[in-house]
Amino acid sequence: MIEPKQDKNWKVRLHEIIYEADTPAGKLFDILLLVVIIASILLVMLESVYSIDIKYHDFLNISEWIITVLFTIEYIARIITVKKPFKYIFSFYGIIDLLSTAPKYLSLIFAGTHALVALRALRLLRVFRILKLARYLGASNNLVSALKASRAKISVFLFTVVILAVILGTIMYLIEGDHNEGFANIPKSVYWCIVTLTTVGFGDIAPQTPLGQFIAALIMILGYGIIAVPTGIVTAEYTSQGNNNKNNTSPNNPEVKKVRLNSQSCSNCLKSDHRDGAQNCYNCGEPLHNT
Amino acid sequence: MIEPKQDKNWKVRLHEIIYEADTPAGKLFDILLLVVIIASILLVMLESVYSIDIKYHDFLNISEWIITVLFTIEYIARIITVKKPFKYIFSFYGIIDLLSTAPKYLSLIFAGTHALVALRALRLLRVFRILKLARYLGASNNLVSALKASRAKISVFLFTVVILAVILGTIMYLIEGDHNEGFANIPKSVYWCIVTLTTVGFGDIAPQTPLGQFIAALIMILGYGIIAVPTGIVTAEYTSQGNNNKNNTSPNNPEVKKVRLNSQSCSNCLKSDHRDGAQNCYNCGEPLHNT
Amino acid sequence: MIEPKQDKNWKVRLHEIIYEADTPAGKLFDILLLVVIIASILLVMLESVYSIDIKYHDFLNISEWIITVLFTIEYIARIITVKKPFKYIFSFYGIIDLLSTAPKYLSLIFAGTHALVALRALRLLRVFRILKLARYLGASNNLVSALKASRAKISVFLFTVVILAVILGTIMYLIEGDHNEGFANIPKSVYWCIVTLTTVGFGDIAPQTPLGQFIAALIMILGYGIIAVPTGIVTAEYTSQGNNNKNNTSPNNPEVKKVRLNSQSCSNCLKSDHRDGAQNCYNCGEPLHNT
Amino acid sequence: MIEPKQDKNWKVRLHEIIYEADTPAGKLFDILLLVVIIASILLVMLESVYSIDIKYHDFLNISEWIITVLFTIEYIARIITVKKPFKYIFSFYGIIDLLSTAPKYLSLIFAGTHALVALRALRLLRVFRILKLARYLGASNNLVSALKASRAKISVFLFTVVILAVILGTIMYLIEGDHNEGFANIPKSVYWCIVTLTTVGFGDIAPQTPLGQFIAALIMILGYGIIAVPTGIVTAEYTSQGNNNKNNTSPNNPEVKKVRLNSQSCSNCLKSDHRDGAQNCYNCGEPLHNT
Repeated sequence: MIEPKQDKNWKVRLHEIIYEADTPAGKLFDILLLVVIIASILLVMLESVYSIDIKYHDFLNISEWIITVLFTIEYIARIITVKKPFKYIFSFYGIIDLLSTAPKYLSLIFAGTHALVALRALRLLRVFRILKLARYLGASNNLVSALKASRAKISVFLFTVVILAVILGTIMYLIEGDHNEGFANIPKSVYWCIVTLTTVGFGDIAPQTPLGQFIAALIMILGYGIIAVPTGIVTAEYTSQGNNNKNNTSPNNPEVKKVRLNSQSCSNCLKSDHRDGAQNCYNCGEPLHNT
Repeated sequence: MIEPKQDKNWKVRLHEIIYEADTPAGKLFDILLLVVIIASILLVMLESVYSIDIKYHDFLNISEWIITVLFTIEYIARIITVKKPFKYIFSFYGIIDLLSTAPKYLSLIFAGTHALVALRALRLLRVFRILKLARYLGASNNLVSALKASRAKISVFLFTVVILAVILGTIMYLIEGDHNEGFANIPKSVYWCIVTLTTVGFGDIAPQTPLGQFIAALIMILGYGIIAVPTGIVTAEYTSQGNNNKNNTSPNNPEVKKVRLNSQSCSNCLKSDHRDGAQNCYNCGEPLHNT
Repeated sequence: MIEPKQDKNWKVRLHEIIYEADTPAGKLFDILLLVVIIASILLVMLESVYSIDIKYHDFLNISEWIITVLFTIEYIARIITVKKPFKYIFSFYGIIDLLSTAPKYLSLIFAGTHALVALRALRLLRVFRILKLARYLGASNNLVSALKASRAKISVFLFTVVILAVILGTIMYLIEGDHNEGFANIPKSVYWCIVTLTTVGFGDIAPQTPLGQFIAALIMILGYGIIAVPTGIVTAEYTSQGNNNKNNTSPNNPEVKKVRLNSQSCSNCLKSDHRDGAQNCYNCGEPLHNT
Repeated sequence: MIEPKQDKNWKVRLHEIIYEADTPAGKLFDILLLVVIIASILLVMLESVYSIDIKYHDFLNISEWIITVLFTIEYIARIITVKKPFKYIFSFYGIIDLLSTAPKYLSLIFAGTHALVALRALRLLRVFRILKLARYLGASNNLVSALKASRAKISVFLFTVVILAVILGTIMYLIEGDHNEGFANIPKSVYWCIVTLTTVGFGDIAPQTPLGQFIAALIMILGYGIIAVPTGIVTAEYTSQGNNNKNNTSPNNPEVKKVRLNSQSCSNCLKSDHRDGAQNCYNCGEPLHNT
C-alpha cells in the first residue's frame, strides 16, 4: 500500500511547486513560468508582423509549438494536483490557461482560427499573481481598499458619462447628421461623443457646422470639468483610508493585528494567503501541507 | 356614492404603481419602464443606421409605434393620477416625456420631423430616478454636497477657460489666419483653442507656422497645468464634506439623525423621499396613501 | 474761485462712476461697459467670418466705429479723472484699453492693420475686474492663496515638462527625422513632444517607425503619469489653506479679522479694495471721496 | 617645493569655480555655463531647420566649433580638478558631458554622425544642478518625498496600464486586424491602445468596425477613469508628507533641525550639500576647502 501513498506525496510536492511560491522549487517554477509567458507573448507579437513572419515563419511556428506543449503540461499538472479539478478548470485562471493553450491545437483542425493564438496575451494577467504586485501597493493595501470603497461611486460616475454620451451624441446626430459622414448614425455619434468627453479626441470624426462645433466645445469643457470627479473620489477615499488605518494601528484598537501571510494555496479550495504556520485552510478546513 | 369612491381608489392604486417603487406592483412597473426605455433607445439607434434601416424598416417602424403607444398610455396615466396635472406637465420629466412621445405623431403630419424621434434618448435621464442612483453615491451624499459647494468655483474656473480660449483664439487667428484654412475666422480659432486647452486635440485643425506652433505649445502646457484646478477644488471640498460629516454624526451634534426614506411620491405636489410611516406629505400636508 | 471747485467736483463724480462700483451710477456704468465689451467682441468675431462680412459689411463697420468712439471717450475720461494719468496709461488695463481702441484709427492710415482690431478681445480680461469674479471663489479666497502658494512648484513642474520635451523631442528627431516629414527638424519634434506629453495629441504629426512608436508610447505613459503632479500640488495646498483658515478664524488667533472691503479706487494711486468707511488710501494716504 | 603647492592651490581654486556655486567666481561660472548650454541647444535646433541651415551654414558651423571647444575645455578642467577623475567620467553628468562634446569631433572622421550633435540637448539636465531647482519645491521638499514614497505604487499602476494595453491591443487586433491597416499587427495595436488609454488620441489609427469602436469606447472610459489613480496616490502621499512634516517640526520632536546647506562639492567623492561651516566631507571625511 506504499505506492498510492508515494503517489500522494508526489502530487503534494507538485502542488507545492505549482501553486506555492515560498519554497525554492516554487520560486523557480514561478520565474520560469513568467519567462515562458513573456516569451510566448513576444512570439505572438512578432508573428503578427507580416515582414517578420515571412522571414522566420518556421522558427516562430516551432517555438510556438514548444510553448504550447509546455503550457499543456502545466495545464494538466494543475488539474491533477488539485483535489477538485473542476474548481480550477472553471476558475478565472483556469479558463485563461485553456484559452491560451487550445487555439494552437484548433488551428490544426480549423484553418481560420490561428489568429486566436493571440489570446495568449491574456496570460499576462497571471503576472499579477506571480509577482504578487498588490504587495507593492503599500503594507496595508490602502489603495486597493480605496478603490473598492469608491467602486460604487466610480461606477455611477462612468454610468453618468455613458448616459451623457448617448444624449449628447443623439443631439449631435440631429445637428450634424445630414452634412457630415462621421455623424451618419446615432451609434457613430455616441462613439464620437465618448471620444470627446474623455478628452481622447482622435479627430477621425469632427463637427463641421458652426452649431455642431459650438455644442462640441460645450462637450469638451464638460469633459474637462468632470474628470475632476473620479479623481476627487479616489483621493478623498484614499486619504480617509490612510486616516482610518492610523486609527486602527493605534493602541485604542487592539483588535486589529498585522499578520504575516504566505503564498501557500489550499489544494482543496484554491484559497491562498494563509497565515504563516496555519495547519488548516481558513476557508474549508482542509489540512495544509507545511514544509 | 360608491362609484366615485371606487374611482378614487382606482386612481390611488395607479398613482402608487406609477409614482412609487416600494410596492411589488410599483417595482414591476419601474423595471418594465426601464426595459421599454432602453428598448426604445436601441430601436432609435438601429433605425439611424442606414444599412439596418433598409433591411428591417417595417419591423423597426412597427416596434416604434408600439413603444410610442405605450409611452402615450404612460403619459396619460401620469396626468390623470396626479392631483395637479399641470404641475407634472410642466415639470422636468413631464416635458421630457412629451418630447419623447410627440415626434412620432408629428412625423405623420410633417414629413421632415421623423429624425426628432431621436429625442427619445432624453428618456435615459429617467434612469436616475428609477434606479435612485444617487443612493449609491454614499449614505450622506458627500459627493453631491461637494459638487454643489464647489459649483460656484468650478463655474468661475470654466468661465476663465472660456475667456482664455477667446483671447488666445483671437491671437492664433492673427498669427495663423492668413496661411491656414483652419484659422480662417475667429469663431473657428476659438473652437480650436477650446479643443487644445481641454487636451482633446482632434487635429482636424492644427497650426502650421512656427510662431503658431510655439503659441499652441504654450496653450497646451497651460491646459495641462490648469486641469489641476477643478480637481483640487472637488477633492478638497469632498474631503472637507467628509470631515464635516464625521463631526455631524458625533455625539456633540445630536440633532442629526439618520432617517429611512421611501420612494413614495405625494399625489398632490409630486415630492418624494417621505419618511417611512409618514401620514402626510412633509411639503404640502396632503395625506399619503400608505399601503 | 467757485469754478475750479465745481470742476473738481465734476471730476470726482466721474471718477466715482468710472472707477467704483458701489454707487448706483457706478454699477450702471460697469454693466453698460460689460455689454459694450461683449458686443464689440461679437462684432469682431462676426466680421472675421468671410460670408457674414460680405453680407453685412457696412452694418459691422459702422457698429465698430460707434464702439471705437465709445471706447475713446471712456479712455479719455479715465485719463482726466485720475490724478496721475501716466500711472493709468502704463498700467495693465491702460495698455489693454489703448490696444483695443487704437487699431481702428490706425486702419484709416495703414491699410493692412485692420485685423489688429481683433486685439479688442483682450478687453475680456476687464470682465474679471467688473464682475469681481474672485469673490465667488470663496469667502477666504483659499483657491487664490493655494494657487499663489503653489506657483513656484507648478513653475518648476512646467519647466521640467519643457526640458523633458526638448530632450525627448531631440531623441525623436534622431530616430524619425530621416523617414518622417513631421520630425524634419528639432523645433517641430519638440512641438510634437509637447503635444504628446500634455495628452493633447493632434495627430497631424505621428511617429511611423516601430522604434519611434515605442519611444512615443513611453512619452505618453510619462505624460499620463506626471499629470498627477500639478493636481497633487494644488489639492494639497488648497486643503492645507482650508485648514490654516480654520485655525485663523479660531479664537486663538484674534489678530485675523474679517473686514468688509468696497470697490472704491484711490484717485491718486489706483489701488482699490479699501475698507468700508476708510478716510484715506491705505497705500498712498490720499483722502478718499466717500459718498 | 612651492610650485607643486601653488599647483595644488590653482587646482583647488579651479575646483571651487567649477564645482561650487557659493563664491562669486563660482556663480559667474555657473551663469556662463547656463548661457553656453542654452546657446548650444538653440544652435543645434536652428541647424536642424533646413531653410536656416542653407542660409547661415558657415556661421552655425563656426559657432558650434567654438562651443565644442568650450565644452572640451570644461570637460578637461572637470577631470583634472577632481581627485578621482574616473568617478566623474563614469558619473551621470560625466557621461552626458562626453556625449554632448564627442559627436562634433566624430563628425570629422565619420560622415554620417553629424546628427548626433543633437545629443547636446541632454546637457539641459545640468540646468537642474545649476539652478538647484529642487530648492524651489518647498523648504522641506515634501513633493520630492511624496514622489519617492509613491514611486512603487505609481510603477505598479503604469505596469498595469502596460499589461492592459497589451491585452486590449491584442483583442483589437483580432477584431480590426483584417479590415484596418492601422491594426495590421499586434505591436501597432498595442501602440494604438496606449495612445487611447492615456487619452492622447492621435487619430492616425482609429477603429472602423462597429465592434472595434465599441471596444475603443470602453478603453477610453477605462483610461478616463483610471487617470484618477496616480493623482489620488500623489495627492494623498503629498498631503500626508505635509502632515508628517508638521509633526516633525513640532517641539515634541526636537531631533529634527533645519540646517543650512551650501553648494560646495567634495573634491574626493563629488558629494555636495555640505553643512555651512563643515570642515570635512560628511561622506568620505576628505577636508573641504572653505573660503
